[in-house]
Amino acid sequence: METALAAVLPASHIAPESLHDAMRYVTLEGGKRVRPLLAFAAGELVGADSTNVERAACAIEMIHVYSLVHDDMPCMDDDVLRRGKPTCHVAYDEATALLVGDALQTLAFEQLSLPMDGVAASAQLQMVRKLAEAAGHGGMAGGQAIDLASVGKQLTLAELEYMHLLKTGALIRASVWLGALAGRALSNEEAERLDQFAKRIGLAFQVVDDVLDCEADTATLGKTAGKDAANNKPTYVSLMGLAEAKRFARELRDEAFAALEPFGPAADRLKALADYIVARSF
Amino acid sequence: METALAAVLPASHIAPESLHDAMRYVTLEGGKRVRPLLAFAAGELVGADSTNVERAACAIEMIHVYSLVHDDMPCMDDDVLRRGKPTCHVAYDEATALLVGDALQTLAFEQLSLPMDGVAASAQLQMVRKLAEAAGHGGMAGGQAIDLASVGKQLTLAELEYMHLLKTGALIRASVWLGALAGRALSNEEAERLDQFAKRIGLAFQVVDDVLDCEADTATLGKTAGKDAANNKPTYVSLMGLAEAKRFARELRDEAFAALEPFGPAADRLKALADYIVARSF
Repeated sequence: METALAAVLPASHIAPESLHDAMRYVTLEGGKRVRPLLAFAAGELVGADSTNVERAACAIEMIHVYSLVHDDMPCMDDDVLRRGKPTCHVAYDEATALLVGDALQTLAFEQLSLPMDGVAASAQLQMVRKLAEAAGHGGMAGGQAIDLASVGKQLTLAELEYMHLLKTGALIRASVWLGALAGRALSNEEAERLDQFAKRIGLAFQVVDDVLDCEADTATLGKTAGKDAANNKPTYVSLMGLAEAKRFARELRDEAFAALEPFGPAADRLKALADYIVARSF
Repeated sequence: METALAAVLPASHIAPESLHDAMRYVTLEGGKRVRPLLAFAAGELVGADSTNVERAACAIEMIHVYSLVHDDMPCMDDDVLRRGKPTCHVAYDEATALLVGDALQTLAFEQLSLPMDGVAASAQLQMVRKLAEAAGHGGMAGGQAIDLASVGKQLTLAELEYMHLLKTGALIRASVWLGALAGRALSNEEAERLDQFAKRIGLAFQVVDDVLDCEADTATLGKTAGKDAANNKPTYVSLMGLAEAKRFARELRDEAFAALEPFGPAADRLKALADYIVARSF
């Protein structure tokens, strides 16, 4: 992923240099690349060509990184540390951070529009659609708007779940889908099962994030810890308690495993990722 | 366009309400819709179905509007008036303006991914690619980065032209292309001529904008007038003088006309638009 992203991002010595340099700064050398890994694992499930999955994985990661850059800006979460480095508007300036996010989003969709050998144009269009639905007003951006509006409010568990389904879950789910769209067509039942897996993992990811925000220190996390509590943001931990949140994450993993059962060993990598995501909170 | 955009934008009564409300506020009831008009006129040239061109036109206009919303933010041009109304971060807040721009960009690409009856999936993918190239780091966002870096600097005419080619020209050019991609395939010579037209018109549009920024008052313009001079930004007027800038705009129009000559009366609407764009500065 590091090599693929480095090849796709514009070179720092080409004008506008500061924009390109900042795009590389925020995207390279950092992040767990969970979404790309999910895309590759889903691609493996359907025998997809890894070059094509790589393209989709770059697109997904760029959408994710753009959202981090914008979320960290002073008018949003106003954060100074991300992936262990100063955030974009701190290392560069606010105007650059704004443009970096904008240009990364565009580059993500551009990636999906480039020829993919052996993938039908209609499947590529589906990728564009899935990614757009996951990232837009009915997905990630919408979830962020609900999150902003919820600061200092008491949310119900159902409201919190809806917010995270949009904010984090939608893109995790799309990661699985984009990988799967690069390979053989799925039956309706297979598609439904894969989607069940993706939904569970998306939710588990957020529950674990809340656990980590509560338990880990800033150095381990690479971003400011304890911020949600300090901002009086509702989290799974604040609503369920720490032990119950951990139990819930494991329950979601087990349900995700069950959904993949009929796929047999082809789903092993997806299962390993589900395990990895949840094990972070042990 | 007004009806089409209103139908495509998320409803204000659906959560997150403030995001959706602000998306409609910035997009509807305003703007000259020059880019959609160019797409429709180019569609007419190649016998495109207007329903499909409408989809592409919505996508282009949403990219344009997102760029206005972000450019007006305090960390960029810090403007309070746009299309005769308070800008998004003034009417709502900065976080909402950031998300509105982000979500409009996503929605633009989503539009191009929806089924278009009678348009090949490969042509739709081409639309995604053309729009992404025009909007991203090598187009609009890159031009904006160069613009920001040029405040207070003395640019040469060649540097100014390059900046505007990216910042404004690329999307104008893509508008013509997306309309054309909805219809019959063009020969290489036709494609080259249409592109010559689109390039000339994109540049003329910016020259005329500079003339208007210098000559018109804020009420007529619907945005703050004289801002470029106040910000010490280089413009065609500051580099060429007012009379020469007007002459240059007319020259570009005449060259644009000449490029369309072999198309005959099918190009009449495109010519009328070129005339309209330049006549604004008379």
